[in-house]
Amino acid sequence: MAKIKVGIIGGSGYTGMELLRLLLAHPEVEVAAVTSRQDAGKPLSHLFPNFFAQHFHDQGTQQDASQELCFVTPDAPEVGACDLLFFATPHGVAAAQAEEFLAQGKKVIDLSADFRLTDIAVWEKWYGMAHPNPKLVREAVYGLPEMPGQRQKIAAARLIANPGCYPTAVALAALPLLHLNAENFLSTTTWIADAKSGISGAGRKAAINLLYAEASENFHAYGLAGHRHQPEIEAIFANSSASAPALLFQPHLLPMTRGMQVSLYVGAAPKPLAEMQKIYEDFYRGEKFVHILPLGQSPQTKAVRGSNFCQVALSERSGQLIVFSVIDNLVKGASGQAIQNLNLCCGFPEHLGLVSAAILA
Amino acid sequence: MAKIKVGIIGGSGYTGMELLRLLLAHPEVEVAAVTSRQDAGKPLSHLFPNFFAQHFHDQGTQQDASQELCFVTPDAPEVGACDLLFFATPHGVAAAQAEEFLAQGKKVIDLSADFRLTDIAVWEKWYGMAHPNPKLVREAVYGLPEMPGQRQKIAAARLIANPGCYPTAVALAALPLLHLNAENFLSTTTWIADAKSGISGAGRKAAINLLYAEASENFHAYGLAGHRHQPEIEAIFANSSASAPALLFQPHLLPMTRGMQVSLYVGAAPKPLAEMQKIYEDFYRGEKFVHILPLGQSPQTKAVRGSNFCQVALSERSGQLIVFSVIDNLVKGASGQAIQNLNLCCGFPEHLGLVSAAILA
Amino acid sequence: MAKIKVGIIGGSGYTGMELLRLLLAHPEVEVAAVTSRQDAGKPLSHLFPNFFAQHFHDQGTQQDASQELCFVTPDAPEVGACDLLFFATPHGVAAAQAEEFLAQGKKVIDLSADFRLTDIAVWEKWYGMAHPNPKLVREAVYGLPEMPGQRQKIAAARLIANPGCYPTAVALAALPLLHLNAENFLSTTTWIADAKSGISGAGRKAAINLLYAEASENFHAYGLAGHRHQPEIEAIFANSSASAPALLFQPHLLPMTRGMQVSLYVGAAPKPLAEMQKIYEDFYRGEKFVHILPLGQSPQTKAVRGSNFCQVALSERSGQLIVFSVIDNLVKGASGQAIQNLNLCCGFPEHLGLVSAAILA
Amino acid sequence: MAKIKVGIIGGSGYTGMELLRLLLAHPEVEVAAVTSRQDAGKPLSHLFPNFFAQHFHDQGTQQDASQELCFVTPDAPEVGACDLLFFATPHGVAAAQAEEFLAQGKKVIDLSADFRLTDIAVWEKWYGMAHPNPKLVREAVYGLPEMPGQRQKIAAARLIANPGCYPTAVALAALPLLHLNAENFLSTTTWIADAKSGISGAGRKAAINLLYAEASENFHAYGLAGHRHQPEIEAIFANSSASAPALLFQPHLLPMTRGMQVSLYVGAAPKPLAEMQKIYEDFYRGEKFVHILPLGQSPQTKAVRGSNFCQVALSERSGQLIVFSVIDNLVKGASGQAIQNLNLCCGFPEHLGLVSAAILA
Repeated sequence: MAKIKVGIIGGSGYTGMELLRLLLAHPEVEVAAVTSRQDAGKPLSHLFPNFFAQHFHDQGTQQDASQELCFVTPDAPEVGACDLLFFATPHGVAAAQAEEFLAQGKKVIDLSADFRLTDIAVWEKWYGMAHPNPKLVREAVYGLPEMPGQRQKIAAARLIANPGCYPTAVALAALPLLHLNAENFLSTTTWIADAKSGISGAGRKAAINLLYAEASENFHAYGLAGHRHQPEIEAIFANSSASAPALLFQPHLLPMTRGMQVSLYVGAAPKPLAEMQKIYEDFYRGEKFVHILPLGQSPQTKAVRGSNFCQVALSERSGQLIVFSVIDNLVKGASGQAIQNLNLCCGFPEHLGLVSAAILA
Repeated sequence: MAKIKVGIIGGSGYTGMELLRLLLAHPEVEVAAVTSRQDAGKPLSHLFPNFFAQHFHDQGTQQDASQELCFVTPDAPEVGACDLLFFATPHGVAAAQAEEFLAQGKKVIDLSADFRLTDIAVWEKWYGMAHPNPKLVREAVYGLPEMPGQRQKIAAARLIANPGCYPTAVALAALPLLHLNAENFLSTTTWIADAKSGISGAGRKAAINLLYAEASENFHAYGLAGHRHQPEIEAIFANSSASAPALLFQPHLLPMTRGMQVSLYVGAAPKPLAEMQKIYEDFYRGEKFVHILPLGQSPQTKAVRGSNFCQVALSERSGQLIVFSVIDNLVKGASGQAIQNLNLCCGFPEHLGLVSAAILA
Repeated sequence: MAKIKVGIIGGSGYTGMELLRLLLAHPEVEVAAVTSRQDAGKPLSHLFPNFFAQHFHDQGTQQDASQELCFVTPDAPEVGACDLLFFATPHGVAAAQAEEFLAQGKKVIDLSADFRLTDIAVWEKWYGMAHPNPKLVREAVYGLPEMPGQRQKIAAARLIANPGCYPTAVALAALPLLHLNAENFLSTTTWIADAKSGISGAGRKAAINLLYAEASENFHAYGLAGHRHQPEIEAIFANSSASAPALLFQPHLLPMTRGMQVSLYVGAAPKPLAEMQKIYEDFYRGEKFVHILPLGQSPQTKAVRGSNFCQVALSERSGQLIVFSVIDNLVKGASGQAIQNLNLCCGFPEHLGLVSAAILA
Repeated sequence: MAKIKVGIIGGSGYTGMELLRLLLAHPEVEVAAVTSRQDAGKPLSHLFPNFFAQHFHDQGTQQDASQELCFVTPDAPEVGACDLLFFATPHGVAAAQAEEFLAQGKKVIDLSADFRLTDIAVWEKWYGMAHPNPKLVREAVYGLPEMPGQRQKIAAARLIANPGCYPTAVALAALPLLHLNAENFLSTTTWIADAKSGISGAGRKAAINLLYAEASENFHAYGLAGHRHQPEIEAIFANSSASAPALLFQPHLLPMTRGMQVSLYVGAAPKPLAEMQKIYEDFYRGEKFVHILPLGQSPQTKAVRGSNFCQVALSERSGQLIVFSVIDNLVKGASGQAIQNLNLCCGFPEHLGLVSAAILA
């Protein structure tokens, strides 16, 4: 069977880079086009030297730098030939362009926030622009496969809103609790998600505060005026439980490239810790990418670095339940989850191309 | 006037190293003895090459590596000649030895936890040994100068229990609130201190989990079974307010050497944010080492790295008040605060030798 | 066809960890045994949490932490059932044990230095012990496939001496020049290999100088009294050219986990730079894992991080030729190359399981 | 006696930041003006939060954020009131403006390269512009106090060209050898300076390759087409010896913020190593900031981090002499050396305000 052809619209950032790295290892996908207006005509390795002499068509054949894939403009014929497009573009671009591609029979997986919030007014407030295509938002499926009921919708979708990194990490920690439907438990406490992200979450952009000399050996909270992922997380909560708790979400910046950790404080546990552990294990039984650590262990970001896995652990302290979760913000928090969604909506095994273990050291 | 002579008992770790670095810049102190059984006879630079050819007696004179200060054994005569001793030893040592030094008329500042907890049973539970000198604990003064009433006690003390790093960072964030004495506010919410520390907090010990290859590019919570600083912080709380809140204290390990940050979640603010800001500014007015940042700014650990300063900021989010604080765990969280206490109990200006600004980049 | 069963003797260090990570992605290999006396009975994830719930037998099936592979003792039956054994042990172990395994019909790939030096006296001087099996050294094949003539020998070998990291990085930079056989050029200059390694090269051992707090933000030369890899590199040189130059090899320690870079200074170039470039490209044409960058580009360690690739570039400066090379010291410098050797001696395509691109950011 | 008033022209970069940090600890200097067109009117702490509530006038008095020093425009009266100006500006600015300030009776210390090269044609080639004031170059004194004869010239100077970081690190390693005047030794070998710099050497500018996510865990050579510091080092060599050797200078970028290391390969040693050691010790005897380590030790960048010290060590290997040197590129390589020059030309003890030991961990 022929491989499916995929394209990446806006492939010069970290999520584009990571899609490329992961798709190189996908046996059923061929990367046919990567767009970047600014870099059109240059080989991928001009921006990403790890792709020097790598072939995106035929894994394992003789490599030759002269046949490297090059960036193209968005109107290049290679884009038109694709079966599926990833958008790794700034906010607003996918919303403006997706409809045309859908009309051509392509599937679209958007890694930006354009289709994540069904409340258009909320989207417009946080993203500071009129939404280019509110109608299309209604069709988009939120691509968090581990959310009950979502996997089937993703499999049937032609437009997928790939979740944000923080929403993924918080949701995977919170979902079993939200689905307990313990009303009194949920509605009376404000949950606190103290979240920490590696620097790659800010994207590949030249900014003073992201410099090595500024960000290394440094740590601080940010987004004191609010963060765009708050309404996305709240939507997950509301969709998961009629009595979803209020949420205080506070992000922090870590002096490292990849990795995201959430310490979720949810108040007094509704059941004994050992029961909660079993509830979590049962909830995610059969899931390939979410693992519940034994009680007493603390998930570390490095244990999932470069992989699509999420590790979750429970703890009790001062009479309160804490749920810890870790993901790689560029993989399960972005590009890996996008490929998981590709697998679902294209009929491949969900884990295809995504089974690499993390790089621990 | 002659300088005072100080000694460091157990000077081969990071707090010893930092005492030495800071005391080199102190105009009224001469380091007369640094003990290390294991390294006795070796020059300090054998362990700490930054002290190669540095003179601890006469700042600014010709330097000569052959006259370097060497480590001595604890029974060396240089120790006996000291006016004041710092203990930078493992738990239990200072408690066993301090009384003899006090009897010789020396002052003692203990950087270990031996004299921090007045409840001996609690100490023995957390530190896993019988306390060597419970009687002496009653005399010790807790060395957190910014705690109301404490500065005067420190000035009169001959035995000072230097606070732990986490208790310092949490206390400086919490004290103005605790002293508001807003009973309903305080007693009804569990405060959550989500705390993060650089790796030097674990000390200079050969352990796999502290290796560069393990700890770099990594982040996780630790101490899931509890942390020794919890009772120390609770004691500060109890001493500060009759209606002190319950505390959930959760430490995390940062991939960096120095720096500690606390995000303290205290529930709904008792007053509007601008008033809270004024309360904090008023509380610390006149303090040399604690600075309240303007609203909207977030304190970063690097802004106090290598310095004795603490930066604090307030924020409101989802209807809840958050207090952020940052310190250098080895300076305001250990050796710098110890020198601040030396200044107080020896009658020097409190900031002597401690005014260096942080190394930002 | 059934997968081949491999075992790792001494699997608790970084090369063992990396063998496991890479073999998880190898379609024709099943990891049947990993030994560690100290950790026998514990699941692999006890040491390496990135392997939590990973299956080393059936990639892609339902994962279940309760069926995790556990460390075994070296005398466990699982070891006996293996077709091929990797030794990732301290020096001396493989030399003592390999013969018995070979007699059982197993192949052996030794990642230690036990079989790398044919001059036993030199080995004994540098490794400080009597060699346990000098006779076996004569049978061992040096596992550097890109060395002319070596690939065929590896394919026929049952005992392979996997090269050291520095020798690999220096050799891949030097081989095309050594094979030029320009006698006057080679013999009159001392070549200088200024080499830099990430910290993982020192192994997974608890040592003060490898701590994050010591090694981060630090750089220095080491091995001033000589380095064990010097005779290994000299042997490569001598085997490659009758007029091999003298070598000054100076290693340095980088503040990072993985990666190795060599700046090889070889004196005045024997031919114009563009010709040298062509000579290098021709020499490595058809090689899967060695890439010559275009003139003007400088290879960076991150471009090969986590991958089995080596990037090489030429430069001219002050009338002298410089050759730069980069590898991941744990992959092409150790475990990746060992799997490349497994592929060769087991008849698999040389690149099987090794085609992942590097993790750039 | 009143303090002298100094100003910093172009104070928004890392050398400006470091001048401010060091001058805060200088007892005879008051920072009266810091210019930045872009940031004029903002307090220093807006860019450099380590200076929040720090007073640059009266060390040790009550601190008050409302009285913070603010950036001013270059034409502000505070600049006119200064006795001495540091230029921490891009190349070309000091050359254009210094003459007017000199005419006002001020002293000028230029941290840019404008006055470092006496050969104007060479300067214009490397800096890509017509030199704004060639005549003034002749008056400028090269501010490397440890260069024989230079200290006296600096003391009498009103315009000082502060050396580059690489030239400082290479010169301090090379000067004793150059002054041996062993003609045959010197002129027959090309010396190779394999130099490595922390990222702060590239300045505080928003550039993709300086991002944490790009530069961390990475190492590579750069400047393959040549580096501006080459002619500056060659000028030091030529001024130090009539038979100065040719130089191959190759810079590399380290994954760390501060620190510079040079491995200088000089061919066969002209004398036995122990004699060379004595020659180096004698050459720098009495120097406050240059220390020769005992044979067998390797200088590490962290041992001088944040300090004005340089550590040098000798080694012999494969019959060749190697000289290692380390400095903090922002201190002895820039701002610290500038203050050392201020001390000399203003008649203060050379080490005033510069005696802090390095921050080792």
